[in-house]
Amino acid sequence: MLGLSNIEILMQGQALQVEWSNGSSSRFHSIWLRDHSPDADTLSPGNGQRLVRIQDLPSDVRIERANALDQNQLELTFGPENKTVIFDSNWLYRNRYDKVRDEASAPAWTGPAITRWGRELQKELPVASFEEASENAEVLRGWLADIARYGVAKMTDMPIESEAICRVVELFGYVRDTNYGRFFEVRTEVNPVNLAYTGLGLQVHTDNPYRDPVPTLQLLSCLENSVDGGDSVIVDSFRAVEILREEAPELFQVLASQPANFTYTGTGDVYLRSKRPIIELGPDSELLAVRFNNRSLGTLTDIPFDHMADFYTAYRKLAEIMERPELEVTFKLRPGELFIVDNTRVTHGRIGYESSGSRWLQGAYADKDSLLSTLAVLENSKNAQEGVA
Amino acid sequence: MLGLSNIEILMQGQALQVEWSNGSSSRFHSIWLRDHSPDADTLSPGNGQRLVRIQDLPSDVRIERANALDQNQLELTFGPENKTVIFDSNWLYRNRYDKVRDEASAPAWTGPAITRWGRELQKELPVASFEEASENAEVLRGWLADIARYGVAKMTDMPIESEAICRVVELFGYVRDTNYGRFFEVRTEVNPVNLAYTGLGLQVHTDNPYRDPVPTLQLLSCLENSVDGGDSVIVDSFRAVEILREEAPELFQVLASQPANFTYTGTGDVYLRSKRPIIELGPDSELLAVRFNNRSLGTLTDIPFDHMADFYTAYRKLAEIMERPELEVTFKLRPGELFIVDNTRVTHGRIGYESSGSRWLQGAYADKDSLLSTLAVLENSKNAQEGVA
Repeated sequence: MLGLSNIEILMQGQALQVEWSNGSSSRFHSIWLRDHSPDADTLSPGNGQRLVRIQDLPSDVRIERANALDQNQLELTFGPENKTVIFDSNWLYRNRYDKVRDEASAPAWTGPAITRWGRELQKELPVASFEEASENAEVLRGWLADIARYGVAKMTDMPIESEAICRVVELFGYVRDTNYGRFFEVRTEVNPVNLAYTGLGLQVHTDNPYRDPVPTLQLLSCLENSVDGGDSVIVDSFRAVEILREEAPELFQVLASQPANFTYTGTGDVYLRSKRPIIELGPDSELLAVRFNNRSLGTLTDIPFDHMADFYTAYRKLAEIMERPELEVTFKLRPGELFIVDNTRVTHGRIGYESSGSRWLQGAYADKDSLLSTLAVLENSKNAQEGVA
Repeated sequence: MLGLSNIEILMQGQALQVEWSNGSSSRFHSIWLRDHSPDADTLSPGNGQRLVRIQDLPSDVRIERANALDQNQLELTFGPENKTVIFDSNWLYRNRYDKVRDEASAPAWTGPAITRWGRELQKELPVASFEEASENAEVLRGWLADIARYGVAKMTDMPIESEAICRVVELFGYVRDTNYGRFFEVRTEVNPVNLAYTGLGLQVHTDNPYRDPVPTLQLLSCLENSVDGGDSVIVDSFRAVEILREEAPELFQVLASQPANFTYTGTGDVYLRSKRPIIELGPDSELLAVRFNNRSLGTLTDIPFDHMADFYTAYRKLAEIMERPELEVTFKLRPGELFIVDNTRVTHGRIGYESSGSRWLQGAYADKDSLLSTLAVLENSKNAQEGVA
């Protein structure tokens, strides 16, 4: 619990400064405070949705009076409405925005919720049993938290039956249906519409970069695997991008600032195209997504001539980094096992295999928003049980 | 058909220049040409996927020889591989990238496939009959093309029965399942988890900005509508953004460069959060998406103090533009009617209504990639029938 003191009205009431009991201080704008007022006319008590439009708030809003009711409650009166509301000091501290955006000094920063990894994850790849995750909320919470942090996890003890993969998705979210179906078969086919349906090795890649929005989660489950080879390979592309930025910042910049084109035409019944950069940054330079797929890189037409040679140099360099052994985690899926990757981050591939024996995987797509939502609900419930505010 | 002539090898074989029969000329890099070689070892003849990794191509690739076999065929020999391939000149012309990126001079540019609109669309809102679109590929193609261009269309003559909305999605793609279900009811509820389920007026908005990836299409169908009011309002946010950029370029820049936060907590069983800008631009400044929803704008914590006041000024200005009458198209859905919007672009809202009478809509989400894919397949098929190359 952080108390507040030394409340000061700044800029003729356009802002406020408070000092926290840890000695730091924060400023808040009056318009921000008014827009975030926790009263029932501003935010719906039932569902937290905002009941006012920005135009409903006076543009000349100002703080007329500010008083600490006690160390943990701040009472503010806004003019010209003459509206008084009470803020909780812990809420204010948690949501303070008057801080140095230090991460932004490193393009492609990631927040503390993400741990980038290399080969060292081989020995501690997150894993949970399907049965336990289905029955024990704490096991499920831990598994989802690992996926949020590492972008990958395995699951064991699945029913070895078709479509069981969809039951895994239902533990946390919703299947993303596509032209490949709710789930799809990954095994050697005679006339493959996709190279995934052959015994060829596949360079690590993110799936479906030609789709917009891209599926943000991919699952692959194993029903049969008696072939020589066919091992799965995964690489944390966020780590690869970090290395690219360290070793060649100007090449990193090219991939982040030039749009690539991705295409999939299959057998003529689909024609999927996207135009997105290989490295997608948010407006504050946060690393949001990587699209990397040599099979699906389409005809590059949106990179100006003056940047094309650099683009290829950068793309080659990133591809080389992606194949560095110290970045690779490998494993062989056994029947009843599955792995899930954050498809905006963790690339996956496979070693080629021979046609003797059989290898039968099933794949499915889902989305991260629901996974993170389920994780947050489970965390809230855990914190409530443990008495954490 | 564009022929080529005056072929010239540039930069010691690292690039090539050709002159087209219309008098213009284009340069191509050797690495680009090699990477796009239309031979069966580079691109899979079956599905067009690339069979080589970038590392499989020599980094010192150069054009050794270049000859026009005739006006429409260019034969190139690449060293050091000593590999000869033949390019079609029309393909090369269509995919030339040696052009001035003139659009990029205007931030938030949109390509020629998009027409921004205002109230003038009221009289010519695209519409198709469900029955005709289901039976006639040309009607469906036209309807999908209108959605791609205008971001909105109506559909009439739908079966007035629950879930019929999903059959409309199946005309072109796949339902995006969410915590709201495959489809959801929009009508007045006693304890609404969402303000949409009340009789309140709703400011125009894009749906679910708190979801990442956001659903890129939204559909709303009408089963009953005998209330006073409840008219639908739609606004082309791409037009609104264009106006903002014209009237206040510095405010446009704030919304494009600062991340907003969106939240939906409902009744505690979901906790959806996203961090995305209100105006999303691609790396070449193309306008990709707008997120605008006053109810779901969360606690803004990722905008530095020094930009927060400007953010609010910009947000207020955009909100005011969104409500300019000359931007609004309004209509009242009748039972058996539906409208679909590109949820990355066209905002929708409704006028409030009284509780006498009944208003029952159903909503569903889907994604644009499949819609654009189906459209492209129908266009290819039409062109093939008409003998267009």
